[in-house]
Amino acid sequence: MKPINVGLLGIGTVGGGTWDVLSRNADEIQRRAGRAIRISLVADKDVARAKKIVKGKAKVISDGAALVRSPEIEIVVELIGGTTIAKELVLEAIRHGKHVVTANKALLATHGNEIFAAAQKKGVMVAFEASVAGGVPIIKALREGLAANRIEWIAGIINGTSNFILSEMRDKGIAFEQALQDAQSRGYAEADPTFDIEGHDTAQKLAILASLAFGIKVDQSAVYVEGISSIASEDLEWADELGYRVKLLGVAVRTDIGIEQRVHPTMVPKDTAIAQVMGVTNAVTVDADAITPITLVGPGAGGMATASSVVSDIGDIARGVRTAPFGRPTGRLTVSKKAPMQRHEGGYYIRLLAVDKPGTAATIAKRLAQQNISLESIVQRHRGERPHGGDVPGRSSEPVPVILITYATTEDAVRKALAAVDRDKVVLGKPQVIRIEKN
Amino acid sequence: MKPINVGLLGIGTVGGGTWDVLSRNADEIQRRAGRAIRISLVADKDVARAKKIVKGKAKVISDGAALVRSPEIEIVVELIGGTTIAKELVLEAIRHGKHVVTANKALLATHGNEIFAAAQKKGVMVAFEASVAGGVPIIKALREGLAANRIEWIAGIINGTSNFILSEMRDKGIAFEQALQDAQSRGYAEADPTFDIEGHDTAQKLAILASLAFGIKVDQSAVYVEGISSIASEDLEWADELGYRVKLLGVAVRTDIGIEQRVHPTMVPKDTAIAQVMGVTNAVTVDADAITPITLVGPGAGGMATASSVVSDIGDIARGVRTAPFGRPTGRLTVSKKAPMQRHEGGYYIRLLAVDKPGTAATIAKRLAQQNISLESIVQRHRGERPHGGDVPGRSSEPVPVILITYATTEDAVRKALAAVDRDKVVLGKPQVIRIEKN
Repeated sequence: MKPINVGLLGIGTVGGGTWDVLSRNADEIQRRAGRAIRISLVADKDVARAKKIVKGKAKVISDGAALVRSPEIEIVVELIGGTTIAKELVLEAIRHGKHVVTANKALLATHGNEIFAAAQKKGVMVAFEASVAGGVPIIKALREGLAANRIEWIAGIINGTSNFILSEMRDKGIAFEQALQDAQSRGYAEADPTFDIEGHDTAQKLAILASLAFGIKVDQSAVYVEGISSIASEDLEWADELGYRVKLLGVAVRTDIGIEQRVHPTMVPKDTAIAQVMGVTNAVTVDADAITPITLVGPGAGGMATASSVVSDIGDIARGVRTAPFGRPTGRLTVSKKAPMQRHEGGYYIRLLAVDKPGTAATIAKRLAQQNISLESIVQRHRGERPHGGDVPGRSSEPVPVILITYATTEDAVRKALAAVDRDKVVLGKPQVIRIEKN
Repeated sequence: MKPINVGLLGIGTVGGGTWDVLSRNADEIQRRAGRAIRISLVADKDVARAKKIVKGKAKVISDGAALVRSPEIEIVVELIGGTTIAKELVLEAIRHGKHVVTANKALLATHGNEIFAAAQKKGVMVAFEASVAGGVPIIKALREGLAANRIEWIAGIINGTSNFILSEMRDKGIAFEQALQDAQSRGYAEADPTFDIEGHDTAQKLAILASLAFGIKVDQSAVYVEGISSIASEDLEWADELGYRVKLLGVAVRTDIGIEQRVHPTMVPKDTAIAQVMGVTNAVTVDADAITPITLVGPGAGGMATASSVVSDIGDIARGVRTAPFGRPTGRLTVSKKAPMQRHEGGYYIRLLAVDKPGTAATIAKRLAQQNISLESIVQRHRGERPHGGDVPGRSSEPVPVILITYATTEDAVRKALAAVDRDKVVLGKPQVIRIEKN
């Protein structure tokens, strides 16, 4: 069979990785795909740099629009990022009957429905394994491997930057700001880290996973988002003491009132597979009706790892695989019925700084009881202090941390109870609230 | 598109699960596959039981040979197990142009090459996701998701019985025999557990994984096998103290002299993903040139979990996916150049029972040095005893455990050194040797 010609839009880190993987493992990939895969055209603004990489083995141009219209190209690999030019070029490629492989989560989270509808109309593939969790084949697992299942719950550590920061804070007992600086100095965080640490990157990826898992249209705006910048070292220490680890999770879950999609710092039991995932590693756990949870763990970023997923997608297309991008025809995707966050049900970790005067604990307990919140545990002491440590000089004047772990309750009840506690003026500052995920 | 007709050979645990999953999630599966999937014919020796399960919704016969020849059937699902009748029926199904889905690892480990060659000749699919690690989509990940990679190393906990026993021994500090009894009473181990605990089940699955990972013909006889029945509680305690967990691993690795395939109790560092996997859960870790290790964790057995993989395979075939069973044409599979176990390189844990007389440690150290074995650590004491615990009455008359952790060396060197130590008559009984896997 004749080689399949691939056009590469952008030859930066992932594009360069794709070039390398395809060159290095060419024989192997050809054997698996049944035909040779050849990058015959590269479009990059920096033509000189691109030429240095391809060393005369592919034509290099600066005009992406010319690439997506080139008659010889069968597959367009979009690695330029962003949502403006990338969108135009991808739609133009589809109009010209090209299959598309992309690593662009922002593009799919924002314009996925439009792009997939266009692709379906033209009968071409849009493949995007690389858009979520880098080298981990989670898209394929959801779309095909677990296709027999009614998925109930999916949760992922899908932002390496945040997981690195939380891991460093825990392992070294350092503050958020210092861990962020460490991440920046290692190249794991951007100069402006907002997108990663405030959960927006996770939200985009979650919207894609949720669409696949539940057969709903991609809708980033349906995702509740909370980042990790408010997490203190002491939260991680308390978590440890109470048997948990804190992770920035993207969670999508089927509830009676719709699909709940949320991104927030989460306490997960220490003995779960996801709790063990440290550093920049990614992991996704899927729970479904027919199975106990399945977890995929692996590299979430990096040029070669992401390229591995890009090339896997190219291989599928070369082998003739044709699947609907979200595992079913776009017309069959339902609009997500958004389960509002106030209705979220689960356990909560609450850390309050209580003024140390008689009746404080009773007041807090009363406010929780009024919202029908039951407590699994309550700890009122400085960390490491013995429960009955005797009199400590000056202790009565200092505020004392109070840690509450609730049984399953609702977001709404927790918010109301804490508002009442605030009005009672028995706590100082803003309460820290971290949701617990038991799966 | 018209429904695709499936014939089910055997409706026991996995067959019943397949029936349930297909009925329960019919709409969802149809959306994903693009057409309805219907089990229209079931062959089972116990016709009465089978009829109770299908409740008139499929024809039930007792003759498997009639099923595989039935013109209406497009996909034959083989769930009868064994390697005799199953082989005949599968080959007959292929001769009649049927696609085959099977969960039968023994069949593939024994006759896989013959079956795949026949299938290729006829242009039909043989899919076998359910044959390894139950509901975990590891076959698809290896064949397609990681198709871009040159795989270097693959290791798996792929026998739930053994992992359950080792987990119980560790968690409860009980002996192998008691943990085995527990496993039997819970239905996790057979009355005759040999096949599971002596590593043969793992070896069959490893031969399948290795074929996919390295493009070699399936060859169960190339697998070195050692089971877990010699593992003592104290080995697990020492492992814990030294930062390891003991797992029965199937490992296949690319070496300079060929593909090494081995099954044996293995010490893995506590902080690896695979070390965390407890109970009957399965896990497979893959390391390749373009990625940091990827681990898949999930249910390794159970009717529904295994059925989930069977139905995923059926769905792939219904969608029109046609892949070579081992990711490439059978003619392109190379014969495994078997790397002999004596040439295995790695670290070792060695537990000796040394006679407590002057010069014993020196003798042992000399024998290791003669084989150029370097020690990472050596501990000579009863566990829990302080290194300088002072005189203990009667201590000098008792043999003392000596624990050695070696740096990377060879199997051959270890065997020779231990033979020499044995001749020196400074140890009692048989040394315990557990290989260390650092990945």
